[in-house]
Amino acid sequence: MKDLDGLFKHFLRDIYYAEKQVLKTLPKMARKAGSSDLKDAFEHHHGETEEQIENLEKVFELIGLKARGVTCEAIDGILDEGKEIMDEAGNDDTRDAGMIAAAQAVEHYEITRYGTLISWAKTLGLDEAVQLLSKNLEQERAADEKLTKLGEGALNREAA
Amino acid sequence: MKDLDGLFKHFLRDIYYAEKQVLKTLPKMARKAGSSDLKDAFEHHHGETEEQIENLEKVFELIGLKARGVTCEAIDGILDEGKEIMDEAGNDDTRDAGMIAAAQAVEHYEITRYGTLISWAKTLGLDEAVQLLSKNLEQERAADEKLTKLGEGALNREAA
Repeated sequence: MKDLDGLFKHFLRDIYYAEKQVLKTLPKMARKAGSSDLKDAFEHHHGETEEQIENLEKVFELIGLKARGVTCEAIDGILDEGKEIMDEAGNDDTRDAGMIAAAQAVEHYEITRYGTLISWAKTLGLDEAVQLLSKNLEQERAADEKLTKLGEGALNREAA
Repeated sequence: MKDLDGLFKHFLRDIYYAEKQVLKTLPKMARKAGSSDLKDAFEHHHGETEEQIENLEKVFELIGLKARGVTCEAIDGILDEGKEIMDEAGNDDTRDAGMIAAAQAVEHYEITRYGTLISWAKTLGLDEAVQLLSKNLEQERAADEKLTKLGEGALNREAA
């Protein structure tokens, strides 16, 4: 991580690892979801995550680097906490509210990382990478907004 | 984390731990900052973080709970990565760009957690807690925006 090029490569590997962990976890979250809307949202985002991983692999190719991840403790921490919530929640609405919170922490981590990668790619003159990373960023932002709405629904049911 | 009340308490302890870790780390980041604007921003946010910790202690008091944190692996992971970047960067502009990226990941984690805590506090009827947590959220959002601007400056210098 000596120069901007090194930072870019490190962050690309970090988000690649994160997306792959998310891809593994989403089917478990979909199975545990109490509301059918939340289940659909997790399943839909699983498909988006597959596309995002392909986009990242294209970015690796563009810079002539083999696609591989580096362990990202932040995403592991968020997903581990999400698993605890799934196991400990006493009812469906609490579990949904907790899983939505965990998923939004994931989205926000990805949003900040894609934002950083895009600004660095611009500085490095990697125009095609900017396009690919921007697609992923837009999907994460939309997913976060959808989760906010689903969270309100889960809380209204919990309060009722 | 059986019910919403339990989730709220867990997330409150999680963000309390996170803010305390951030408070410890910011002076180190300010010392390592190459640009004086970034140094000022980290020092200013150190003062804000002290206020935020006091606000969280008031929320603990409101719900009759002793203020204490629980280890948050996400924030530890983000801060550890930030330390690696600080040590490995080959020049001031790269170090600044990397520290800004780490600080923005912290801000985004806090933004998502305060957003969740506020929506849960509303459902739980904790109106005073909503006010206190909203103050913290606004400060984090403003800090994130300031970092985006400072990041552009560091990248322009790096590119020049």
